Parts: sequence; structure tokens; C-alpha cells
Amino acid sequence: MKSYSKYIWFNTKKKQEFINITPEVEIALRESRIKEGLCLVNAMHITASVFINDDEQGLHRDFELWLDNLVPSSVRYKHNLTGEDNARAHLKRTILGRGVVVAVTQGRLDFGPWEQIFYGEFDGQRRKRVLIKIVGD
Amino acid sequence: MKSYSKYIWFNTKKKQEFINITPEVEIALRESRIKEGLCLVNAMHITASVFINDDEQGLHRDFELWLDNLVPSSVRYKHNLTGEDNARAHLKRTILGRGVVVAVTQGRLDFGPWEQIFYGEFDGQRRKRVLIKIVGD
Amino acid sequence: MKSYSKYIWFNTKKKQEFINITPEVEIALRESRIKEGLCLVNAMHITASVFINDDEQGLHRDFELWLDNLVPSSVRYKHNLTGEDNARAHLKRTILGRGVVVAVTQGRLDFGPWEQIFYGEFDGQRRKRVLIKIVGD
Repeated sequence: MKSYSKYIWFNTKKKQEFINITPEVEIALRESRIKEGLCLVNAMHITASVFINDDEQGLHRDFELWLDNLVPSSVRYKHNLTGEDNARAHLKRTILGRGVVVAVTQGRLDFGPWEQIFYGEFDGQRRKRVLIKIVGD
Repeated sequence: MKSYSKYIWFNTKKKQEFINITPEVEIALRESRIKEGLCLVNAMHITASVFINDDEQGLHRDFELWLDNLVPSSVRYKHNLTGEDNARAHLKRTILGRGVVVAVTQGRLDFGPWEQIFYGEFDGQRRKRVLIKIVGD
Repeated sequence: MKSYSKYIWFNTKKKQEFINITPEVEIALRESRIKEGLCLVNAMHITASVFINDDEQGLHRDFELWLDNLVPSSVRYKHNLTGEDNARAHLKRTILGRGVVVAVTQGRLDFGPWEQIFYGEFDGQRRKRVLIKIVGD
């Protein structure tokens, strides 16, 4: 069994941002030389997500508005009493998820027609990491 | 390390439907001859889910009503301005999740007493695929 | 490829409780002697979660209040017509997730600075299990 690890860094301009990281994951997969196995991609910070969906700007705006609604700004979050201001980012990341596991088949990400991998930042404007871990043969 | 891939197709009669796919995953596991490892099962389309829960009709109806509420029909979703009508399906699938990773132990899905794997369709009545990928020894 | 399975039991004092299980997962990882691979940790019951977030009491209270809101007590859930009273626990567990996959790198959980693994119980006061499955070399 082979394994390969790669860390990619982000420092988004906006507090909240969705970035298509499929090309970076494909590069890591080629570097790994793994042909059959599993590829884990996860945020290493607890106010960010890695998720799979469509690369469509309108849908991403729908995600943002929907999450704003599901995690209301009107609540007085206890986490923010510790001096933090990112309680909502923790909850929003919970909805989109910490990470994804993708099958690797014949040296490629085994994806359906519209699947793309996104980094979802909810508390940006500082350096944060994503881990790509590929195991297989 | 061995690996095994299998694709199963769905074309649901209803727009929204939950289907117990545990038997199909068990068949794929036997075909793989893998005794110890991990089994990834994921929707290959971004308006469908694969999730684990109880095989109880009342609970499934609760899921449907709950998701209808969490993803309101009254919102004017921007994704639907592209000519699509399935923005809500994208958001609902996000709650139930794209897929699951199940342990394989002694040649079996290593499940608790009530765990069953479901395909969750939110934009059906057309052909869609699920991927089963098993890696191990 | 090596693999290692371990089951850990819980019987929480309260109906709802979050428990940091990172130390137990680290012990299992040392026992496995696996240096590179993937570690799956999942609830084996469908009214409990395993998730990764911050070990901060205020945030955990925010999670509880947020889930109480997202899964309202005022709804007459159909699952509860079967004699059960835990429909809300099934839905809450869906938000926090069934389990996590963590990379193993150089014999350690490959975590960012604040990542910790929690067992999330939503229907406690009875014996329930979590599975730790590690595969790799």
C-alpha cells in the first residue's frame, strides 16, 4: 500500500468564500502515482469545510443565504463570550461538512458528471490548511 | 491491497425517494472478496445522497417533512435562474450527505443493530448512479 | 496492508451529551502500530454522532441550542407513533454526522491545531458503541 500527503494553504480575501480545489486534488493524485484507492480531503480548521457540489455561482450564493438563515445572526452564541466572534462559522461548517472521501479508479478521481470539490471558508482572511491524503496502490 | 468498484443505477418513479441499498452493497462486498478494509458508498450526482439510518417508513416521512422545512419552497433560489428547477435538491442532499464510509470486518459490513444504507433521491425520474468502492485485503 | 478494529462503549448519564474521545482514538492508533493510512470513527447507533470540532463548552452549548431549534419539539414526528420517542435524536444526529475519517501520518492523527473528535449522544442513558477502524501500513 502506498500513501501520499499534501497540505494546501488558503488565505481568502473575504471572510466567507467557496473555492474550487478539484485541480489541486488532481495534481496531488498524479504526484501520488496511486491508481486504485481512496482520497481523503479535509479542512484542518474547524470553521471551514470541504464539500462536493456543482461549480455554479448562483448555487453558491444560495448556499450562503441558506446558511445565513439556518445559523441566525440574531442569536447570542455562548462561544462568542470567550472573546471569539466565529460561533456561526463553526455551525455553518457543520452543515457543509469537514471533508470528503473520493474513490480513486484507474488513476482518476471517480466522479459523476458535475462533481467538483470545494473549500468552504467561513472565517477567512487568515492562513488555513486543507489536507489531501491518498492511500492505495 | 485489493480494490473493487461497482456502479449501481437508479431511475426512481418519484422525484423524491429513499431506497434501502444495503443488500446491493453486501453483494458488492462478497464479489470483492475483501475481508478487512473500508467501503465507500457515494452518490455520483449532486442532487442525491447516500446515508445511514433506520429502515422505518415513519422516520423517512419525518426526514422528508423536515427537509421541506429546512429548505423552504418560498425562497427564490438563484440556481433556478439558470433554467434549473432543482436548487432545493442540492441543499437537501447537503443535509443528508453525499456518502458514507463503512468498515469491513471479517468480510462483513461492520454495522450496529439498526444501521442500513439508503440512497436518497431528491431530483429523480432520470438515470443516476451510486459508486461502491471497497479497498482492503 | 494492516487493519485494526476497536469498539468503545458509552452509557451517558444524560440523554444528550458530548464526549471528547480523541484520547481513546489515539490509544487505538498506537495499538494498531499503523503509521500511514486512514482512521474511520463512527457511531454504531443511529441516534448518535461522531464529529470533529473544538473542545469548548460554550460552543457545545451552542450546538445543543441550535439543534433544538433546527429539530423542533413542537412537530408530531411519525417515527414516534411506532412507540419510539427518539425521532428528534435521529434528525439531530444527521446534522452532526455519523462519523469521521481522519488521516494517519507518521503514526499520528493528522490534525489541525484545534481538531478534536467527539461522541455526540442524543438518546443516551443506555449502552451504545463507537467503532474505530484503522487501515494502512
